[in-house]
Amino acid sequence: MLAIGIDPGTAICGFGLVEMVGNKLTPIHYGAVFTDKDMLPELRLKKIYDELSVLLDEYRPDVMSVEQLFFNRNVTTAISVGQARGVALLTAANRGIQITEFTPMQIKQAVVGYGGANKEQVTFMVQKLLNIRTKPKPDDVADALAVAICGLHTAATRRWQELK
Amino acid sequence: MLAIGIDPGTAICGFGLVEMVGNKLTPIHYGAVFTDKDMLPELRLKKIYDELSVLLDEYRPDVMSVEQLFFNRNVTTAISVGQARGVALLTAANRGIQITEFTPMQIKQAVVGYGGANKEQVTFMVQKLLNIRTKPKPDDVADALAVAICGLHTAATRRWQELK
Repeated sequence: MLAIGIDPGTAICGFGLVEMVGNKLTPIHYGAVFTDKDMLPELRLKKIYDELSVLLDEYRPDVMSVEQLFFNRNVTTAISVGQARGVALLTAANRGIQITEFTPMQIKQAVVGYGGANKEQVTFMVQKLLNIRTKPKPDDVADALAVAICGLHTAATRRWQELK
Repeated sequence: MLAIGIDPGTAICGFGLVEMVGNKLTPIHYGAVFTDKDMLPELRLKKIYDELSVLLDEYRPDVMSVEQLFFNRNVTTAISVGQARGVALLTAANRGIQITEFTPMQIKQAVVGYGGANKEQVTFMVQKLLNIRTKPKPDDVADALAVAICGLHTAATRRWQELK
């Protein structure tokens, strides 16, 4: 099973493709779509849409996993992240790829085993689980890999429960 | 010149196509994309994307006008509206259609002549300016027509200033 995790944002949209075979997790491809703040907002969204579309067509993941957003930060940020998130969800919907959403706590629980884990712990466990030596940068990439892992674990648990 | 005004939202995405020839404004087509709350979020976004894409291909507007969003309402709403807004902006970006954004005050100023106008005054003036007898419903449609009118007025003023 192949999952793509997305950490949406207009300036940096992190993505991480992770494959699970049995219990083994393998990072297939990860990185981020960067858009320049001098670009028109709609062209930034188009760049995210186009680059994610290429990724989905190339790797054909089974599932897209995205963090559920609960901000208490400023609302302008929420709209900007919402716009990027909408475009990311659309790329999956256009291809009939299933979307799974997780709270930050579910993601930390799945990756670190503890819902109150901090950013460093999440990044450390992402590297450990995926056997990645160099710390993924920026943080958005590690977050995207974390949500992909969460999506795979959840799917595995569900399958296991169905088999019981 | 043909403008499409958009009032983005996930449940109701209002649109209004208005043409301006000289000083004369004509409503060409208006309505809303409705999505059911029982649909998957990504399929709601896809429906908005698909229906707006059809409209843009059919009517080929010169410009898309959208309200700038400054919420002080809850942030979950901002993310949901942001997602729909992102998808709407993308339909224009995909076709190289110019996007103009306006503050609520600019829209009221353009339609009513007074930035502090209320909803009823805006709807009344939209009907008056476009010679629409039946009140456009829901409010999102009137708002979409209002932002289209604002986009046309602004373009006309700009052209007039360039000719001076």
